Amino acid sequence: MEKIINGKEISKKIKEEIKKEVGGFPSKPSLVVIQVGNDEASNIYINTKKKACIEVGIKVYHLKYNENVAEEFLIEKIKKLNNDQKIDGILLQLPLPQNLNATKIIKHIDPSKDVDGLTSANIGKLMNNSNGLIPCTPLGIMELLKAYDVKIEGKHVVIVGRSTLIGKPLISLFLNNNATITICHSKTKNLSEYTKQADILVVAVGKKHLINRNMIKEGVIIIDVGINRVANKLYGDVDFSNVLDKVSLITPVPGGVGPMTVTMLLKNVVNCYKKRHHSE
Amino acid sequence: MEKIINGKEISKKIKEEIKKEVGGFPSKPSLVVIQVGNDEASNIYINTKKKACIEVGIKVYHLKYNENVAEEFLIEKIKKLNNDQKIDGILLQLPLPQNLNATKIIKHIDPSKDVDGLTSANIGKLMNNSNGLIPCTPLGIMELLKAYDVKIEGKHVVIVGRSTLIGKPLISLFLNNNATITICHSKTKNLSEYTKQADILVVAVGKKHLINRNMIKEGVIIIDVGINRVANKLYGDVDFSNVLDKVSLITPVPGGVGPMTVTMLLKNVVNCYKKRHHSE
Repeated sequence: MEKIINGKEISKKIKEEIKKEVGGFPSKPSLVVIQVGNDEASNIYINTKKKACIEVGIKVYHLKYNENVAEEFLIEKIKKLNNDQKIDGILLQLPLPQNLNATKIIKHIDPSKDVDGLTSANIGKLMNNSNGLIPCTPLGIMELLKAYDVKIEGKHVVIVGRSTLIGKPLISLFLNNNATITICHSKTKNLSEYTKQADILVVAVGKKHLINRNMIKEGVIIIDVGINRVANKLYGDVDFSNVLDKVSLITPVPGGVGPMTVTMLLKNVVNCYKKRHHSE
Repeated sequence: MEKIINGKEISKKIKEEIKKEVGGFPSKPSLVVIQVGNDEASNIYINTKKKACIEVGIKVYHLKYNENVAEEFLIEKIKKLNNDQKIDGILLQLPLPQNLNATKIIKHIDPSKDVDGLTSANIGKLMNNSNGLIPCTPLGIMELLKAYDVKIEGKHVVIVGRSTLIGKPLISLFLNNNATITICHSKTKNLSEYTKQADILVVAVGKKHLINRNMIKEGVIIIDVGINRVANKLYGDVDFSNVLDKVSLITPVPGGVGPMTVTMLLKNVVNCYKKRHHSE
Protein backbone atom coordinates (compact mmCIF):
# COMPACT_ATOMS: atom_id res chain seq x y z
CA MET A 1 0.00 0.00 0.00
CA GLU A 2 1.08 3.53 -0.74
CA LYS A 3 2.41 5.13 2.43
CA ILE A 4 2.76 8.71 1.16
CA ILE A 5 -0.45 10.65 1.77
CA ASN A 6 -1.50 12.41 -1.40
CA GLY A 7 -2.91 15.72 -0.18
CA LYS A 8 -3.16 17.10 -3.69
CA GLU A 9 -5.35 14.25 -4.91
CA ILE A 10 -7.70 14.28 -1.90
CA SER A 11 -7.91 18.03 -2.04
CA LYS A 12 -8.80 17.90 -5.73
CA LYS A 13 -11.60 15.43 -5.06
CA ILE A 14 -13.09 17.55 -2.28
CA LYS A 15 -12.87 20.67 -4.43
CA GLU A 16 -14.86 18.93 -7.16
CA GLU A 17 -17.56 18.05 -4.63
CA ILE A 18 -17.64 21.65 -3.41
CA LYS A 19 -17.88 22.97 -6.97
CA LYS A 20 -20.81 20.70 -7.66
CA GLU A 21 -22.58 21.76 -4.48
CA VAL A 22 -21.99 25.46 -5.10
CA GLY A 23 -23.33 25.04 -8.64
CA GLY A 24 -26.68 24.13 -7.12
CA PHE A 25 -26.92 27.25 -4.94
CA PRO A 26 -29.26 30.10 -5.95
CA SER A 27 -26.40 32.61 -5.49
CA LYS A 28 -22.62 32.56 -5.14
CA PRO A 29 -21.06 32.27 -1.68
CA SER A 30 -18.65 35.14 -1.06
CA LEU A 31 -15.42 35.66 0.84
CA VAL A 32 -13.54 38.83 1.75
CA VAL A 33 -9.79 38.53 2.27
CA ILE A 34 -8.24 41.42 4.19
CA GLN A 35 -4.52 41.92 3.68
CA VAL A 36 -2.35 44.53 5.36
CA GLY A 37 1.07 45.28 3.95
CA ASN A 38 2.86 43.40 1.22
CA ASP A 39 4.36 40.29 2.85
CA GLU A 40 5.69 38.09 0.04
CA ALA A 41 4.46 34.78 1.50
CA SER A 42 1.03 36.31 2.17
CA ASN A 43 0.82 37.48 -1.45
CA ILE A 44 1.43 33.90 -2.59
CA TYR A 45 -1.06 32.36 -0.14
CA ILE A 46 -3.77 34.87 -0.99
CA ASN A 47 -3.34 34.26 -4.71
CA THR A 48 -3.70 30.52 -4.12
CA LYS A 49 -6.85 31.13 -2.06
CA LYS A 50 -8.35 33.46 -4.66
CA LYS A 51 -7.65 31.00 -7.46
CA ALA A 52 -9.25 28.15 -5.49
CA CYS A 53 -12.34 30.23 -4.70
CA ILE A 54 -12.87 31.15 -8.33
CA GLU A 55 -12.32 27.53 -9.37
CA VAL A 56 -15.28 26.30 -7.28
CA GLY A 57 -17.58 29.28 -7.86
CA ILE A 58 -16.98 31.34 -4.71
CA LYS A 59 -16.89 35.12 -5.15
CA VAL A 60 -13.77 36.57 -3.58
CA TYR A 61 -12.98 40.20 -2.71
CA HIS A 62 -9.41 41.12 -1.88
CA LEU A 63 -9.00 44.23 0.27
CA LYS A 64 -5.34 45.21 0.42
CA TYR A 65 -4.30 48.02 2.74
CA ASN A 66 -1.08 49.90 3.29
CA GLU A 67 0.81 48.72 6.39
CA ASN A 68 0.20 52.10 8.00
CA VAL A 69 -3.56 51.57 8.12
CA ALA A 70 -5.07 52.31 11.56
CA GLU A 71 -6.37 49.50 13.78
CA GLU A 72 -9.65 51.41 14.20
CA PHE A 73 -10.09 51.61 10.45
CA LEU A 74 -9.75 47.83 10.10
CA ILE A 75 -12.17 47.23 12.96
CA GLU A 76 -14.74 49.58 11.39
CA LYS A 77 -14.29 47.81 8.05
CA ILE A 78 -14.85 44.42 9.70
CA LYS A 79 -18.00 45.69 11.44
CA LYS A 80 -19.38 46.81 8.07
CA LEU A 81 -18.59 43.42 6.55
CA ASN A 82 -20.27 41.69 9.52
CA ASN A 83 -23.48 43.55 8.68
CA ASP A 84 -23.17 43.13 4.92
CA GLN A 85 -25.73 40.49 3.92
CA LYS A 86 -23.83 39.75 0.69
CA ILE A 87 -20.70 38.59 2.55
CA ASP A 88 -20.50 35.03 3.94
CA GLY A 89 -16.88 34.79 5.11
CA ILE A 90 -14.24 37.20 6.40
CA LEU A 91 -10.57 36.23 6.45
CA LEU A 92 -7.89 38.41 7.99
CA GLN A 93 -4.61 37.27 6.42
CA LEU A 94 -1.95 36.73 9.07
CA PRO A 95 0.66 37.72 10.08
CA LEU A 96 -0.20 41.42 10.40
CA PRO A 97 2.52 44.08 10.50
CA GLN A 98 3.99 44.46 14.01
CA ASN A 99 2.19 47.72 14.75
CA LEU A 100 -1.22 46.02 14.59
CA ASN A 101 -2.75 43.82 17.32
CA ALA A 102 -4.22 40.78 15.56
CA THR A 103 -6.03 39.45 18.66
CA LYS A 104 -7.77 42.77 19.18
CA ILE A 105 -8.88 42.99 15.54
CA ILE A 106 -9.99 39.33 15.22
CA LYS A 107 -12.30 39.81 18.22
CA HIS A 108 -14.53 41.95 16.02
CA ILE A 109 -15.13 39.34 13.32
CA ASP A 110 -18.67 37.94 13.55
CA PRO A 111 -18.16 34.30 14.66
CA SER A 112 -20.63 33.16 11.98
CA LYS A 113 -18.34 34.66 9.27
CA ASP A 114 -15.04 33.69 10.93
CA VAL A 115 -13.79 31.24 8.27
CA ASP A 116 -10.41 30.84 10.00
CA GLY A 117 -12.12 29.75 13.26
CA LEU A 118 -10.02 32.18 15.30
CA THR A 119 -12.63 33.96 17.43
CA SER A 120 -13.02 32.89 21.07
CA ALA A 121 -16.59 31.79 20.39
CA ASN A 122 -15.44 29.33 17.71
CA ILE A 123 -12.48 28.07 19.74
CA GLY A 124 -14.83 27.46 22.68
CA LYS A 125 -17.35 25.68 20.48
CA LEU A 126 -14.64 23.39 19.14
CA MET A 127 -13.54 22.57 22.70
CA ASN A 128 -17.18 21.74 23.51
CA ASN A 129 -17.56 19.69 20.33
CA SER A 130 -20.43 21.91 19.25
CA ASN A 131 -21.05 23.14 15.76
CA GLY A 132 -18.74 26.10 15.03
CA LEU A 133 -16.13 27.05 12.44
CA ILE A 134 -12.85 25.11 12.71
CA PRO A 135 -9.42 26.44 11.62
CA CYS A 136 -8.59 25.22 8.10
CA THR A 137 -5.29 23.39 8.63
CA PRO A 138 -6.46 21.23 11.57
CA LEU A 139 -9.69 20.51 9.71
CA GLY A 140 -7.66 19.48 6.66
CA ILE A 141 -5.54 17.13 8.77
CA MET A 142 -8.64 15.34 10.07
CA GLU A 143 -9.92 15.02 6.48
CA LEU A 144 -6.62 13.48 5.35
CA LEU A 145 -6.77 10.90 8.14
CA LYS A 146 -10.38 10.15 7.28
CA ALA A 147 -9.51 9.72 3.59
CA TYR A 148 -6.90 7.12 4.55
CA ASP A 149 -9.29 5.34 6.95
CA VAL A 150 -7.09 6.01 9.97
CA LYS A 151 -8.87 4.97 13.16
CA ILE A 152 -8.29 7.65 15.79
CA GLU A 153 -10.20 6.37 18.83
CA GLY A 154 -7.88 5.01 21.53
CA LYS A 155 -4.74 6.02 19.62
CA HIS A 156 -1.96 7.98 21.27
CA VAL A 157 -1.66 11.22 19.34
CA VAL A 158 1.40 13.34 20.05
CA ILE A 159 1.17 16.95 18.87
CA VAL A 160 4.38 19.00 18.69
CA GLY A 161 3.57 22.71 18.62
CA ARG A 162 0.80 24.61 20.40
CA SER A 163 -0.10 27.48 18.07
CA THR A 164 -3.57 29.00 18.03
CA LEU A 165 -3.99 28.10 14.37
CA ILE A 166 -2.82 24.48 14.51
CA GLY A 167 -1.71 22.78 17.74
CA LYS A 168 -4.47 24.01 20.05
CA PRO A 169 -7.43 23.29 17.77
CA LEU A 170 -5.94 19.84 17.08
CA ILE A 171 -6.14 19.03 20.80
CA SER A 172 -9.90 19.57 20.66
CA LEU A 173 -10.36 17.73 17.37
CA PHE A 174 -8.43 14.64 18.42
CA LEU A 175 -10.04 14.68 21.85
CA ASN A 176 -13.48 14.81 20.24
CA ASN A 177 -12.39 11.73 18.30
CA ASN A 178 -11.46 9.88 21.51
CA ALA A 179 -7.68 9.83 21.14
CA THR A 180 -5.31 10.00 24.10
CA ILE A 181 -3.32 13.16 23.49
CA THR A 182 0.08 14.50 24.45
CA ILE A 183 0.97 18.07 23.59
CA CYS A 184 4.63 19.10 23.39
CA HIS A 185 6.22 22.47 22.67
CA SER A 186 9.36 24.56 23.09
CA LYS A 187 9.37 24.07 26.89
CA THR A 188 9.08 20.27 26.67
CA LYS A 189 12.09 18.43 28.03
CA ASN A 190 13.28 15.27 26.20
CA LEU A 191 10.99 15.69 23.22
CA SER A 192 11.89 12.30 21.76
CA GLU A 193 10.60 10.51 24.88
CA TYR A 194 7.16 11.68 23.83
CA THR A 195 7.42 11.46 20.04
CA LYS A 196 8.58 7.84 20.35
CA GLN A 197 5.26 6.97 22.00
CA ALA A 198 3.10 8.34 19.20
CA ASP A 199 0.75 6.20 17.14
CA ILE A 200 -0.02 9.41 15.27
CA LEU A 201 2.56 12.20 15.34
CA VAL A 202 1.65 15.73 14.26
CA VAL A 203 4.51 18.19 13.94
CA ALA A 204 3.75 21.89 13.54
CA VAL A 205 6.76 23.81 14.73
CA GLY A 206 8.53 25.35 11.76
CA LYS A 207 11.98 23.80 12.21
CA LYS A 208 13.45 21.99 9.23
CA HIS A 209 13.96 18.27 9.93
CA LEU A 210 13.28 18.53 13.68
CA ILE A 211 12.09 14.90 13.68
CA ASN A 212 14.30 12.00 12.55
CA ARG A 213 14.06 8.21 12.65
CA ASN A 214 15.48 7.94 16.16
CA MET A 215 12.55 9.90 17.53
CA ILE A 216 9.69 7.74 16.26
CA LYS A 217 8.41 4.22 16.68
CA GLU A 218 7.98 1.67 13.91
CA GLY A 219 4.66 2.03 12.08
CA VAL A 220 3.81 5.55 13.22
CA ILE A 221 1.56 7.82 11.14
CA ILE A 222 3.19 11.22 10.65
CA ILE A 223 1.45 14.47 9.74
CA ASP A 224 4.05 17.09 8.89
CA VAL A 225 2.62 20.62 9.01
CA GLY A 226 5.98 22.40 8.74
CA ILE A 227 6.75 24.56 5.72
CA ASN A 228 10.37 25.65 5.86
CA ARG A 229 11.75 27.51 2.87
CA VAL A 230 15.51 27.14 2.49
CA ALA A 231 17.22 28.41 -0.68
CA ASN A 232 13.82 28.48 -2.38
CA LYS A 233 13.14 24.82 -1.67
CA LEU A 234 10.44 23.64 0.79
CA TYR A 235 11.21 21.32 3.71
CA GLY A 236 8.97 19.86 6.39
CA ASP A 237 9.58 19.60 10.14
CA VAL A 238 10.23 15.90 9.57
CA ASP A 239 13.27 14.45 7.78
CA PHE A 240 11.11 12.69 5.21
CA SER A 241 13.60 10.39 3.48
CA ASN A 242 15.24 9.52 6.79
CA VAL A 243 11.96 8.29 8.38
CA LEU A 244 10.13 6.94 5.33
CA ASP A 245 10.85 3.22 5.76
CA LYS A 246 9.87 3.33 9.43
CA VAL A 247 6.43 4.96 9.09
CA SER A 248 3.14 3.46 7.99
CA LEU A 249 1.81 6.73 6.57
CA ILE A 250 3.30 10.19 6.12
CA THR A 251 2.41 13.53 4.53
CA PRO A 252 5.04 14.94 2.20
CA VAL A 253 6.05 18.62 2.09
CA PRO A 254 4.90 20.05 -0.24
CA GLY A 255 1.77 18.20 -1.38
CA GLY A 256 0.52 16.90 1.98
CA VAL A 257 -1.25 19.17 4.43
CA GLY A 258 -0.75 22.35 2.41
CA PRO A 259 -3.32 21.78 -0.36
CA MET A 260 -5.92 20.73 2.22
CA THR A 261 -5.73 24.06 4.07
CA VAL A 262 -6.99 26.02 1.09
CA THR A 263 -9.66 23.44 0.33
CA MET A 264 -10.97 23.57 3.91
CA LEU A 265 -11.21 27.35 3.59
CA LEU A 266 -13.59 26.78 0.67
CA LYS A 267 -15.54 24.33 2.78
CA ASN A 268 -15.81 26.83 5.64
CA VAL A 269 -17.05 29.57 3.28
CA VAL A 270 -19.68 27.19 1.91
CA ASN A 271 -20.74 26.23 5.44
CA CYS A 272 -21.14 29.91 6.36
CA TYR A 273 -23.23 30.41 3.24
CA LYS A 274 -25.45 27.43 4.00
CA LYS A 275 -26.04 28.51 7.58
CA ARG A 276 -26.92 32.04 6.48
CA HIS A 277 -29.39 30.63 3.97
CA HIS A 278 -30.78 28.02 6.38
CA SER A 279 -30.37 25.36 3.74
CA GLU A 280 -28.25 23.07 5.87
CA MET B 1 7.84 18.63 54.99
CA GLU B 2 4.10 18.08 55.10
CA LYS B 3 3.03 16.22 51.96
CA ILE B 4 -0.74 16.49 52.41
CA ILE B 5 -2.07 19.61 50.73
CA ASN B 6 -4.30 21.51 53.12
CA GLY B 7 -7.06 22.87 50.89
CA LYS B 8 -9.10 24.04 53.85
CA GLU B 9 -6.31 26.19 55.23
CA ILE B 10 -5.39 27.77 51.88
CA SER B 11 -9.02 28.33 51.09
CA LYS B 12 -9.55 30.04 54.44
CA LYS B 13 -6.63 32.37 53.83
CA ILE B 14 -7.91 33.36 50.38
CA LYS B 15 -11.41 33.92 51.75
CA GLU B 16 -10.01 36.31 54.32
CA GLU B 17 -8.27 38.27 51.57
CA ILE B 18 -11.49 38.38 49.55
CA LYS B 19 -13.48 39.54 52.59
CA LYS B 20 -11.02 42.33 53.18
CA GLU B 21 -11.14 43.42 49.55
CA VAL B 22 -14.95 43.32 49.39
CA GLY B 23 -15.10 45.38 52.57
CA GLY B 24 -13.44 48.21 50.67
CA PHE B 25 -15.97 48.22 47.81
CA PRO B 26 -18.62 50.96 47.62
CA SER B 27 -21.34 48.31 47.19
CA LYS B 28 -21.73 44.55 47.66
CA PRO B 29 -20.93 42.23 44.74
CA SER B 30 -23.92 40.01 43.97
CA LEU B 31 -24.46 36.50 42.70
CA VAL B 32 -27.60 34.75 41.48
CA VAL B 33 -27.71 30.97 41.83
CA ILE B 34 -30.32 29.29 39.64
CA GLN B 35 -31.42 25.84 40.75
CA VAL B 36 -33.90 23.59 38.98
CA GLY B 37 -35.41 20.65 40.84
CA ASN B 38 -34.39 19.40 44.24
CA ASP B 39 -31.24 17.30 43.71
CA GLU B 40 -29.90 16.45 47.17
CA ALA B 41 -26.22 17.00 46.32
CA SER B 42 -27.08 20.31 44.63
CA ASN B 43 -28.93 21.44 47.76
CA ILE B 44 -25.80 20.79 49.81
CA TYR B 45 -23.45 22.49 47.32
CA ILE B 46 -25.69 25.54 47.01
CA ASN B 47 -25.92 25.92 50.76
CA THR B 48 -22.14 25.81 51.00
CA LYS B 49 -21.86 28.44 48.26
CA LYS B 50 -24.44 30.71 49.88
CA LYS B 51 -22.74 30.45 53.25
CA ALA B 52 -19.36 31.28 51.73
CA CYS B 53 -20.80 34.29 49.87
CA ILE B 54 -22.37 35.72 53.00
CA GLU B 55 -19.15 35.10 54.93
CA VAL B 56 -17.12 37.39 52.64
CA GLY B 57 -19.83 40.00 52.03
CA ILE B 58 -21.23 38.89 48.67
CA LYS B 59 -24.99 39.23 48.22
CA VAL B 60 -26.49 35.98 47.01
CA TYR B 61 -29.91 35.34 45.51
CA HIS B 62 -31.14 31.77 45.24
CA LEU B 63 -33.75 31.16 42.54
CA LYS B 64 -35.17 27.67 42.90
CA TYR B 65 -37.55 26.36 40.25
CA ASN B 66 -39.71 23.30 39.94
CA GLU B 67 -38.17 20.65 37.66
CA ASN B 68 -41.01 21.18 35.20
CA VAL B 69 -39.96 24.75 34.47
CA ALA B 70 -39.74 25.49 30.71
CA GLU B 71 -36.39 25.99 29.00
CA GLU B 72 -37.69 29.26 27.49
CA PHE B 73 -38.62 30.56 30.92
CA LEU B 74 -35.08 29.96 32.20
CA ILE B 75 -33.56 31.61 29.14
CA GLU B 76 -35.81 34.66 29.56
CA LYS B 77 -34.87 34.83 33.23
CA ILE B 78 -31.16 34.70 32.34
CA LYS B 79 -31.59 37.46 29.78
CA LYS B 80 -33.19 39.66 32.42
CA LEU B 81 -30.33 38.94 34.82
CA ASN B 82 -27.81 39.75 32.07
CA ASN B 83 -29.34 43.21 31.79
CA ASP B 84 -29.76 43.73 35.52
CA GLN B 85 -27.07 46.20 36.56
CA LYS B 86 -27.28 45.05 40.19
CA ILE B 87 -26.21 41.48 39.32
CA ASP B 88 -22.51 40.66 38.88
CA GLY B 89 -22.54 36.87 38.56
CA ILE B 90 -24.95 34.21 37.30
CA LEU B 91 -24.50 30.56 38.23
CA LEU B 92 -26.67 27.80 36.80
CA GLN B 93 -26.34 24.88 39.22
CA LEU B 94 -25.61 21.63 37.34
CA PRO B 95 -26.75 18.98 36.70
CA LEU B 96 -30.13 20.07 35.35
CA PRO B 97 -33.06 17.66 35.18
CA GLN B 98 -32.89 15.46 32.06
CA ASN B 99 -35.65 17.32 30.22
CA LEU B 100 -33.56 20.51 30.08
CA ASN B 101 -30.66 21.17 27.69
CA ALA B 102 -27.87 22.73 29.79
CA THR B 103 -25.68 23.66 26.78
CA LYS B 104 -28.55 25.53 25.16
CA ILE B 105 -29.36 27.45 28.34
CA ILE B 106 -25.75 28.27 29.28
CA LYS B 107 -25.26 29.87 25.84
CA HIS B 108 -27.49 32.73 26.98
CA ILE B 109 -25.44 33.69 30.03
CA ASP B 110 -23.56 36.94 29.43
CA PRO B 111 -19.86 35.87 29.33
CA SER B 112 -19.00 38.78 31.63
CA LYS B 113 -21.33 37.31 34.32
CA ASP B 114 -20.48 33.65 33.65
CA VAL B 115 -18.86 32.83 37.02
CA ASP B 116 -18.57 29.14 36.14
CA GLY B 117 -16.62 29.94 32.95
CA LEU B 118 -18.81 27.65 30.87
CA THR B 119 -19.74 29.84 27.91
CA SER B 120 -17.90 29.29 24.61
CA ALA B 121 -16.49 32.81 24.78
CA ASN B 122 -14.82 32.11 28.14
CA ILE B 123 -13.58 28.65 27.12
CA GLY B 124 -12.06 30.19 23.98
CA LYS B 125 -10.46 32.99 25.97
CA LEU B 126 -8.88 30.48 28.33
CA MET B 127 -7.51 28.52 25.37
CA ASN B 128 -6.04 31.78 24.03
CA ASN B 129 -4.67 32.70 27.45
CA SER B 130 -6.64 35.93 27.38
CA ASN B 131 -8.47 37.46 30.26
CA GLY B 132 -11.80 35.65 30.77
CA LEU B 133 -13.61 33.77 33.55
CA ILE B 134 -12.13 30.37 34.42
CA PRO B 135 -14.11 27.41 35.85
CA CYS B 136 -13.77 27.30 39.65
CA THR B 137 -12.34 23.82 40.25
CA PRO B 138 -9.47 24.10 37.72
CA LEU B 139 -8.73 27.59 38.98
CA GLY B 140 -8.65 26.23 42.54
CA ILE B 141 -6.21 23.49 41.51
CA MET B 142 -3.80 26.04 40.07
CA GLU B 143 -4.05 28.09 43.29
CA LEU B 144 -3.23 25.02 45.40
CA LEU B 145 -0.14 24.30 43.30
CA LYS B 146 0.89 27.94 43.57
CA ALA B 147 0.42 27.90 47.36
CA TYR B 148 2.79 24.91 47.58
CA ASP B 149 5.34 26.54 45.22
CA VAL B 150 5.03 23.78 42.63
CA LYS B 151 6.94 24.67 39.46
CA ILE B 152 4.81 23.73 36.46
CA GLU B 153 6.94 24.78 33.48
CA GLY B 154 8.49 21.79 31.69
CA LYS B 155 6.71 19.27 33.93
CA HIS B 156 4.77 16.37 32.47
CA VAL B 157 1.19 16.81 33.64
CA VAL B 158 -1.13 13.86 33.09
CA ILE B 159 -4.83 14.65 33.33
CA VAL B 160 -7.29 11.76 33.68
CA GLY B 161 -10.80 12.89 32.73
CA ARG B 162 -11.89 15.33 30.04
CA SER B 163 -15.03 16.98 31.40
CA THR B 164 -16.05 20.48 30.37
CA LEU B 165 -15.86 21.66 33.96
CA ILE B 166 -12.49 20.16 34.91
CA GLY B 167 -10.34 18.20 32.45
CA LYS B 168 -10.67 20.45 29.42
CA PRO B 169 -10.06 23.78 31.13
CA LEU B 170 -7.05 22.20 32.91
CA ILE B 171 -5.47 21.49 29.51
CA SER B 172 -5.52 25.21 28.75
CA LEU B 173 -4.36 26.25 32.22
CA PHE B 174 -1.40 23.87 32.33
CA LEU B 175 -0.50 24.65 28.72
CA ASN B 176 -0.52 28.37 29.50
CA ASN B 177 1.93 27.49 32.30
CA ASN B 178 4.26 25.70 29.85
CA ALA B 179 3.73 22.11 30.99
CA THR B 180 3.86 19.14 28.63
CA ILE B 181 0.39 17.62 28.89
CA THR B 182 -1.16 14.22 28.36
CA ILE B 183 -4.92 13.87 28.54
CA CYS B 184 -6.46 10.45 29.25
CA HIS B 185 -10.09 9.36 29.48
CA SER B 186 -12.44 6.40 29.23
CA LYS B 187 -11.17 5.47 25.75
CA THR B 188 -7.50 5.48 26.78
CA LYS B 189 -5.84 2.09 26.52
CA ASN B 190 -3.33 1.10 29.23
CA LEU B 191 -4.04 4.03 31.50
CA SER B 192 -1.17 3.21 33.86
CA GLU B 193 1.39 3.59 31.04
CA TYR B 194 0.50 7.26 31.07
CA THR B 195 -0.12 7.86 34.77
CA LYS B 196 3.31 6.35 35.54
CA GLN B 197 4.94 9.12 33.51
CA ALA B 198 3.32 11.97 35.41
CA ASP B 199 5.28 14.54 37.37
CA ILE B 200 1.89 16.01 38.25
CA LEU B 201 -1.15 13.72 38.06
CA VAL B 202 -4.66 15.15 38.10
CA VAL B 203 -7.50 12.65 38.41
CA ALA B 204 -11.07 13.81 37.79
CA VAL B 205 -13.08 10.77 36.82
CA GLY B 206 -15.43 9.87 39.68
CA LYS B 207 -14.30 6.30 40.30
CA LYS B 208 -13.36 5.39 43.86
CA HIS B 209 -9.68 4.42 44.14
CA LEU B 210 -9.05 4.24 40.38
CA ILE B 211 -5.39 5.09 40.99
CA ASN B 212 -3.11 2.97 43.18
CA ARG B 213 0.63 2.86 43.91
CA ASN B 214 1.42 0.62 40.94
CA MET B 215 0.19 3.32 38.58
CA ILE B 216 2.42 6.21 39.71
CA LYS B 217 6.08 7.06 39.85
CA GLU B 218 8.03 7.88 42.99
CA GLY B 219 7.74 11.53 43.96
CA VAL B 220 4.68 12.42 41.89
CA ILE B 221 2.36 15.27 42.88
CA ILE B 222 -1.26 14.10 42.89
CA ILE B 223 -4.36 16.27 42.63
CA ASP B 224 -7.42 14.17 43.37
CA VAL B 225 -10.63 15.82 42.14
CA GLY B 226 -12.86 12.78 42.69
CA ILE B 227 -15.68 12.91 45.22
CA ASN B 228 -17.20 9.44 45.57
CA ARG B 229 -19.81 8.96 48.26
CA VAL B 230 -20.02 5.37 49.48
CA ALA B 231 -22.16 4.53 52.54
CA ASN B 232 -22.12 8.22 53.45
CA LYS B 233 -18.32 8.42 53.49
CA LEU B 234 -16.30 10.38 50.88
CA TYR B 235 -13.55 8.78 48.80
CA GLY B 236 -11.28 10.21 46.13
CA ASP B 237 -10.34 8.73 42.75
CA VAL B 238 -6.96 7.92 44.28
CA ASP B 239 -6.34 5.26 46.94
CA PHE B 240 -4.87 7.79 49.35
CA SER B 241 -3.35 5.57 52.04
CA ASN B 242 -2.03 3.16 49.42
CA VAL B 243 -0.06 5.86 47.54
CA LEU B 244 0.86 8.23 50.37
CA ASP B 245 4.45 7.10 50.98
CA LYS B 246 5.23 7.22 47.25
CA VAL B 247 4.06 10.77 46.49
CA SER B 248 5.72 14.09 47.20
CA LEU B 249 2.44 15.99 47.53
CA ILE B 250 -1.22 14.96 47.45
CA THR B 251 -4.65 16.46 48.01
CA PRO B 252 -6.86 14.56 50.46
CA VAL B 253 -10.58 13.92 49.90
CA PRO B 254 -12.32 15.69 51.55
CA GLY B 255 -10.35 18.83 52.41
CA GLY B 256 -8.21 19.13 49.28
CA VAL B 257 -9.66 20.50 46.05
CA GLY B 258 -13.24 20.77 47.32
CA PRO B 259 -12.93 23.81 49.56
CA MET B 260 -11.02 25.66 46.81
CA THR B 261 -13.88 25.34 44.32
CA VAL B 262 -16.24 27.42 46.44
CA THR B 263 -13.52 29.96 47.21
CA MET B 264 -12.73 30.41 43.52
CA LEU B 265 -16.43 31.05 42.89
CA LEU B 266 -16.16 33.98 45.32
CA LYS B 267 -13.06 35.17 43.48
CA ASN B 268 -14.87 35.01 40.14
CA VAL B 269 -17.84 36.98 41.49
CA VAL B 270 -15.46 39.63 42.79
CA ASN B 271 -13.64 39.74 39.46
CA CYS B 272 -16.96 40.26 37.64
CA TYR B 273 -17.81 43.05 40.05
CA LYS B 274 -14.46 44.74 39.57
CA LYS B 275 -14.67 44.59 35.79
CA ARG B 276 -18.19 46.02 35.85
CA HIS B 277 -17.01 48.84 38.06
CA HIS B 278 -13.78 49.40 36.13
CA SER B 279 -11.81 49.35 39.33
CA GLU B 280 -9.42 46.63 38.30
